[in-house]
Amino acid sequence: MTERPAFQDLYPDRWSHCYGCGRLNDHGLHVRSFWEGEETVARVVPRPEHTSLPGYVYGGLIASAIDCHSTGSAAAAAHRAAGGELDGGELPRFVTARLEVDFLAPAPVDQPLELRSTIEEVKERKVTVATELTASGELCARGRAVLVRVPDSWLPG
Amino acid sequence: MTERPAFQDLYPDRWSHCYGCGRLNDHGLHVRSFWEGEETVARVVPRPEHTSLPGYVYGGLIASAIDCHSTGSAAAAAHRAAGGELDGGELPRFVTARLEVDFLAPAPVDQPLELRSTIEEVKERKVTVATELTASGELCARGRAVLVRVPDSWLPG
Repeated sequence: MTERPAFQDLYPDRWSHCYGCGRLNDHGLHVRSFWEGEETVARVVPRPEHTSLPGYVYGGLIASAIDCHSTGSAAAAAHRAAGGELDGGELPRFVTARLEVDFLAPAPVDQPLELRSTIEEVKERKVTVATELTASGELCARGRAVLVRVPDSWLPG
Repeated sequence: MTERPAFQDLYPDRWSHCYGCGRLNDHGLHVRSFWEGEETVARVVPRPEHTSLPGYVYGGLIASAIDCHSTGSAAAAAHRAAGGELDGGELPRFVTARLEVDFLAPAPVDQPLELRSTIEEVKERKVTVATELTASGELCARGRAVLVRVPDSWLPG
């Protein structure tokens, strides 16, 4: 049922080391994102140490999750806009140019965070993604990210 | 020379468990912030696993560092505005209402990040902080955060 690949499963290996979303990072958060119709969703389970004030998630985790879910969503949206299917091909890689987060309510550290995003704009090299982050159904944060395609010149070898 | 306390050393114990900046969080980033004249500064050393694309810091670490340095800066600025000295008293605790980050250049993962902030506005319950993040002298990101004082009602016991 959930055996379909996440967006991040379709990055080439050389782009899969990100602490936030890289499947090849042993220490990382492993954000995994999927299409649900026209929206993208991810679910992130905080670790007990990801606290801020006792009992709540620290803001950096919320920002990190929104950031990496947005880069993945941008890659999937650009791929879809170009007519691609998520059938094992490789996704392009986007990085964040701008990130905005409004923290609306404290998120409990012992509950999964659900991120649900809409793609506001897709150009070949630039995508804008708006995200709502909820915990136990309560809206805890809103994010907006502008993502740009990684120039090949950034990449080693 | 550097034996003066960081802002985060002056939080009460119950507010010192944050993954980003809590001195009592064994797994965290331990962001520590200081006054330099009218500016606040912090230095964050990425861990090797904090990578995004190979060789560069993932955006979530940059957002996390700006976030926690900003909350500390807000606390210190509010304390100073109220006439307090950083001489062992307790700082108030602020949390982030809004965070904006512009990622301008990739930051190398093997260099310390320096954060340098100006306090744009100080009210009793709301502070705005603007930050420049550099690595090896190069400007990598700009941040802006709006911080609000934690209501006592949020706190356990």
